[in-house]
Amino acid sequence: MVSVWLSKLKFPLTIAILQVLFIILYAVFIDYDATASPPKTMTNSTQEESGAAMVHKYYAMFQDVHVMMFIGFGFLMMFLRRYGFSSVGLNMLIAALCIQWSTLIGGIIHHHGDTFTVSITTMLTSDFASASILITFGALLGKTSPLQMVLVTMFGIVLFAVNEYIGLVVLRAVDVGGSMFVHAFGAYFGLTISRVLYNAEVEQSKKENSVYHSDMFAVVGTIFLWLFWPSFNSALAVEDAQHRAVLNTYYALAACCLVTFAISSLVDKDGKFDMVHIQNATLAGGVAVGTSADMMIRPYGALIIGSVAAVLSTLGYKYVTPFLKSKLKIHDTCGVNNLHGMPAIMAGLAGAITVAMADTDNYGFTLYRQFPAMAPEESTQELAELNKVHQIEAGQGRSAKEQAVFQLIALVVTLGFALVGGLFVGLLLKFCKLLGQPSGDNFFDDSLSWHVPPESNSEASLEGHGANSSASKADTSRSALFSGHVDKGDMTLEESAFLGDDKV
Amino acid sequence: MVSVWLSKLKFPLTIAILQVLFIILYAVFIDYDATASPPKTMTNSTQEESGAAMVHKYYAMFQDVHVMMFIGFGFLMMFLRRYGFSSVGLNMLIAALCIQWSTLIGGIIHHHGDTFTVSITTMLTSDFASASILITFGALLGKTSPLQMVLVTMFGIVLFAVNEYIGLVVLRAVDVGGSMFVHAFGAYFGLTISRVLYNAEVEQSKKENSVYHSDMFAVVGTIFLWLFWPSFNSALAVEDAQHRAVLNTYYALAACCLVTFAISSLVDKDGKFDMVHIQNATLAGGVAVGTSADMMIRPYGALIIGSVAAVLSTLGYKYVTPFLKSKLKIHDTCGVNNLHGMPAIMAGLAGAITVAMADTDNYGFTLYRQFPAMAPEESTQELAELNKVHQIEAGQGRSAKEQAVFQLIALVVTLGFALVGGLFVGLLLKFCKLLGQPSGDNFFDDSLSWHVPPESNSEASLEGHGANSSASKADTSRSALFSGHVDKGDMTLEESAFLGDDKV
Amino acid sequence: MVSVWLSKLKFPLTIAILQVLFIILYAVFIDYDATASPPKTMTNSTQEESGAAMVHKYYAMFQDVHVMMFIGFGFLMMFLRRYGFSSVGLNMLIAALCIQWSTLIGGIIHHHGDTFTVSITTMLTSDFASASILITFGALLGKTSPLQMVLVTMFGIVLFAVNEYIGLVVLRAVDVGGSMFVHAFGAYFGLTISRVLYNAEVEQSKKENSVYHSDMFAVVGTIFLWLFWPSFNSALAVEDAQHRAVLNTYYALAACCLVTFAISSLVDKDGKFDMVHIQNATLAGGVAVGTSADMMIRPYGALIIGSVAAVLSTLGYKYVTPFLKSKLKIHDTCGVNNLHGMPAIMAGLAGAITVAMADTDNYGFTLYRQFPAMAPEESTQELAELNKVHQIEAGQGRSAKEQAVFQLIALVVTLGFALVGGLFVGLLLKFCKLLGQPSGDNFFDDSLSWHVPPESNSEASLEGHGANSSASKADTSRSALFSGHVDKGDMTLEESAFLGDDKV
Repeated sequence: MVSVWLSKLKFPLTIAILQVLFIILYAVFIDYDATASPPKTMTNSTQEESGAAMVHKYYAMFQDVHVMMFIGFGFLMMFLRRYGFSSVGLNMLIAALCIQWSTLIGGIIHHHGDTFTVSITTMLTSDFASASILITFGALLGKTSPLQMVLVTMFGIVLFAVNEYIGLVVLRAVDVGGSMFVHAFGAYFGLTISRVLYNAEVEQSKKENSVYHSDMFAVVGTIFLWLFWPSFNSALAVEDAQHRAVLNTYYALAACCLVTFAISSLVDKDGKFDMVHIQNATLAGGVAVGTSADMMIRPYGALIIGSVAAVLSTLGYKYVTPFLKSKLKIHDTCGVNNLHGMPAIMAGLAGAITVAMADTDNYGFTLYRQFPAMAPEESTQELAELNKVHQIEAGQGRSAKEQAVFQLIALVVTLGFALVGGLFVGLLLKFCKLLGQPSGDNFFDDSLSWHVPPESNSEASLEGHGANSSASKADTSRSALFSGHVDKGDMTLEESAFLGDDKV
Repeated sequence: MVSVWLSKLKFPLTIAILQVLFIILYAVFIDYDATASPPKTMTNSTQEESGAAMVHKYYAMFQDVHVMMFIGFGFLMMFLRRYGFSSVGLNMLIAALCIQWSTLIGGIIHHHGDTFTVSITTMLTSDFASASILITFGALLGKTSPLQMVLVTMFGIVLFAVNEYIGLVVLRAVDVGGSMFVHAFGAYFGLTISRVLYNAEVEQSKKENSVYHSDMFAVVGTIFLWLFWPSFNSALAVEDAQHRAVLNTYYALAACCLVTFAISSLVDKDGKFDMVHIQNATLAGGVAVGTSADMMIRPYGALIIGSVAAVLSTLGYKYVTPFLKSKLKIHDTCGVNNLHGMPAIMAGLAGAITVAMADTDNYGFTLYRQFPAMAPEESTQELAELNKVHQIEAGQGRSAKEQAVFQLIALVVTLGFALVGGLFVGLLLKFCKLLGQPSGDNFFDDSLSWHVPPESNSEASLEGHGANSSASKADTSRSALFSGHVDKGDMTLEESAFLGDDKV
Repeated sequence: MVSVWLSKLKFPLTIAILQVLFIILYAVFIDYDATASPPKTMTNSTQEESGAAMVHKYYAMFQDVHVMMFIGFGFLMMFLRRYGFSSVGLNMLIAALCIQWSTLIGGIIHHHGDTFTVSITTMLTSDFASASILITFGALLGKTSPLQMVLVTMFGIVLFAVNEYIGLVVLRAVDVGGSMFVHAFGAYFGLTISRVLYNAEVEQSKKENSVYHSDMFAVVGTIFLWLFWPSFNSALAVEDAQHRAVLNTYYALAACCLVTFAISSLVDKDGKFDMVHIQNATLAGGVAVGTSADMMIRPYGALIIGSVAAVLSTLGYKYVTPFLKSKLKIHDTCGVNNLHGMPAIMAGLAGAITVAMADTDNYGFTLYRQFPAMAPEESTQELAELNKVHQIEAGQGRSAKEQAVFQLIALVVTLGFALVGGLFVGLLLKFCKLLGQPSGDNFFDDSLSWHVPPESNSEASLEGHGANSSASKADTSRSALFSGHVDKGDMTLEESAFLGDDKV
């Protein structure tokens, strides 16, 4: 009896402890950015305008990215017919955890342990960090408990932040749309965990599929991701590069959508479209153009990248996912390898190739703004001039080819972090029984961790009857009606799985 | 026969009369703001730029708030399994009525009966006014006729506007996110009406619950509200305060989401999550931080407010709602007391406490911009300087503690307006039989006022058959197919309820 | 056997050829706008800021319009109970094709065959062009194959671009919300094609109706369209006119929504609302105010236009659609005549009337900015002054009444293009059997071109069983499960229709 109560308390307790911890650490480390603080003096007249300027500059794109995280990812994962509550609900839980935790970890790493400030740009980078863990969630969808995902998030965000720091600050690689640091990391981190947790029972599940309406909810996610991807790839770009990143992503996605329909029909024996491809592969162009989105790839270059990504991703869903599952024992619920993994590697390569051809003929002085390590090492006359007008500072005098090599190193380091980190976290999940690994009939099933209402009105009318008559005295709230439904039958099994009882 | 026709005409006639009235009153009272009007002279070069500036400054956040009103509230209320059309449809009807009516009433009150102008900021304040009535609708959902809601809206908007005028202009209280004037007013106005209309038959209804997909539609509303709440709380804030309001709301909501999951699991006997909590209590942080969103509460303060709001709101759904229903005969369909009422009172208190600690050490000169009544009463040297640079005017020289007291008075006045106004409107609804109070089997049922199609494809195939064969000559439009479905069986009863025939 | 393979390849091959063609033509014709390109010189300091300015100025409204195209139109058409995948999926396919093709065709026409540049404003105009073809799709929904729609798109965009060029550049008509060039063209182009393709079998279909949840998905589209319509009507307006266009559209839609509810109830024998009206006619105000949105119609004028549009559109759904179908053999699946066609003609007339009353008393110098052809023909002293400050150039010295006549000519020319173009494209579709005209049981049915999962969980559980046991060795991906479902029964018939085999 005591162990049941302890088991029941472990989730709320963990969250409560984390939330208290966050409050304390925020009090110690974090203050408002100057543009979100009142001016110190009574007559300051310039600083006070900058708050509004920050909001005008970043807020609209921030909200687009925000919608991508919660509506985009949340609904995209709703395709499973019995896992909709978990998809959108746990997505929200994970993202809210990421937001708080990555603000803290990212700030501490970038400021080497000093106190730091938050602003709308840290809101953006926190949302980006969330994206990587939500991609990881896609690989694990339906196969992990909420508490396991909390652990994945806590470790994942630290790994993400350290890897990003190495990539951006140490290696000085560039990745405006986060294809390497967000997508490649998130996908392969998740796939490695999925490999470690491999369980043949998952393949037996009869619930890993969609119904008509669950596919329609999923497509809500697809389209919001597709629409707002230009914001994701350009939110942190500047000046002409931002405008260019918007254009390149827009064209890459348009081509990707078209070609996905073509390949989906081509590889089907009946020539029909597969909704799985449309829901996912249409987005691969946004990933594949991510690293080079702000570079001079020209509109036709964006079309080529988008088209190739569509082919890669659609064929991935058709051939690679079954191969990974049957041969390598990597089960990839949402096919994140096809939507995020392979297109992200493609993005890293496309970025390196584009960087290798970058010069001042193409970029003018903005070469040194986009690739700061390529700026001359020592202060020249020209550089002094540029610094005065454009705040461009001395770099490391890298050649374009050297920068390209550093881009590739950043990609390899990212994959290394994902694999080693995923191995570690996967083993932790596997051997820490307390976290409550689902099993048997509990895969891909909301009733593992939610009270689930009946599916249809006809069912509900019958249910309503029963629940009402039996529960009318104690509690007539909606949840009572639902629990009446779920309680019948397989509750014991579900319960023990949720509570992490490995004897069942 | 004549009375049937009169009954059938009362809804369209009421709306038609109102719309004609609006057109006349708009023609008499309203013109475009200067920034939406061409310059008077042929060579004016400054004014003409301000139109674009207004749009750039407010439009993105206005659209976020607009989405909250129509998608957010509309879908959040879709959880009821047989009331989806009414939830989203009547939400739209009410909001469109509010927009037109509150533009008029708000303008007339604030300009003391003079003609006045409209701009994108009046669009924002009209949307805020709508929010309060949509909250009221949440308390009454499924228990009122469309015509009753029109009456609630017409009176509600007047009460809202008068109360807001007293709070903002007479008492000079501040409430950037409208937690007191919008949320507290809307919730307790609705709950009072619900108390007056209390009908034991409502408790017998077997339709006040959700099905799997209706809960998924509801969560669309939840997430858009959650995402765009920072816009709601900061749209009308200025400069550094706007940036701060965005940050505070973002952090409050992140903490609120996390803690809601913890408490939802904690209070459940199986340790499972309840979708009702996730759909609603995750948003309480946005309400609770509303009054103090633009104040110097620091990020950890926002986390605390969000966390406490989550506890309050989730426990409210679990324990307060059943108590209100069984003991106080207040039936609260959407639990607006938990999502809007109690968190709004908390917001008012948190605001008053924060105001009591406000000084120029924290706020610099912006103290007098955020709390205008605290500016020195007479023109000092310093004030003259501030006025020149920041357009800050002489106030009433209130101390921080005095301002805090005025904040509390505004909260009490708001609650008074809600209770007295709700009592009056509730009695009107109760005794004006003509408005068509639903009863018996008509609660929580779309078919009271909509033609409802069959629920599933298998049903539809059967229906389609019948309808087609019986109605093929006269009218083969979609609506004919639906009415074929609804006509069978309980139509007589529904009809009479809709037409307000109190003999049934 | 060979012919089967050729039939199966025709869709992917067509798309592949088009995409390669686009890549080549983009490489030849298109480069980034100057504001999306790095400055040519190393020390340029002004141009580089304009990229950010362009993004800030247009991006938020562009994204609103983008959401309207993909979520708005895509979901609005989801009402059909068995055609949801096609509605949202083919909508996406068509829009992605439109974006690429109209960027090219529009640029080539406007630059008379020279190379040209793209920017966020060409992204906007491409999305507007998409709108017209998506409206056309609404008229044809459920009655055409994907390949037929590709052909409709390719021709439709060319017709659209030529007509718009004639209207805007040759006739110098104004149409800020594209009511004539986008809505009237799209609607009557589609209706003409529908007339040519008329097939009595369509009327026999038992699938042209909605179920409860499909109607809820559709209303997602409705509301996003309703919310963002002010962006559609004002995105390309300038200064005070943009602010005014936002206000006018907002008020027109609010009135339109209210009056639609009134008329929907009025014309129903039971006094109930019809969801078809709410989904569609509430939007007619946005179309009807489109041409005059940026003009001085004053807020009450906007209310009048919105109210009249609601009456026109709702009565259209009730009486005109059945009449067109039964008497004129024009089957209009989405009722685009009521939502786009008639309100667009009304918009053109309202625009012409408003223009006829325009003078410098109302518009000041902006008269010549809004109606450039009305500027004095030769350079006066005043005009030179205006040109210096506001870049206003000499026009043709048209009187207001002359401009009104040109407005009407543009409307007539647009209708001419729609009818003649629709006739041509319709005949092409009718006689080119290779394109795969659906027939018999294939109308309004996703399974014509999609693998469709089971509808409900109970069905899926049974399905999952069978599919799993029979397909477990070869391929256990989601698509395998679906195809297992669809394969049973009517596959042969569907297949042949999809493959365009006209013997069946």
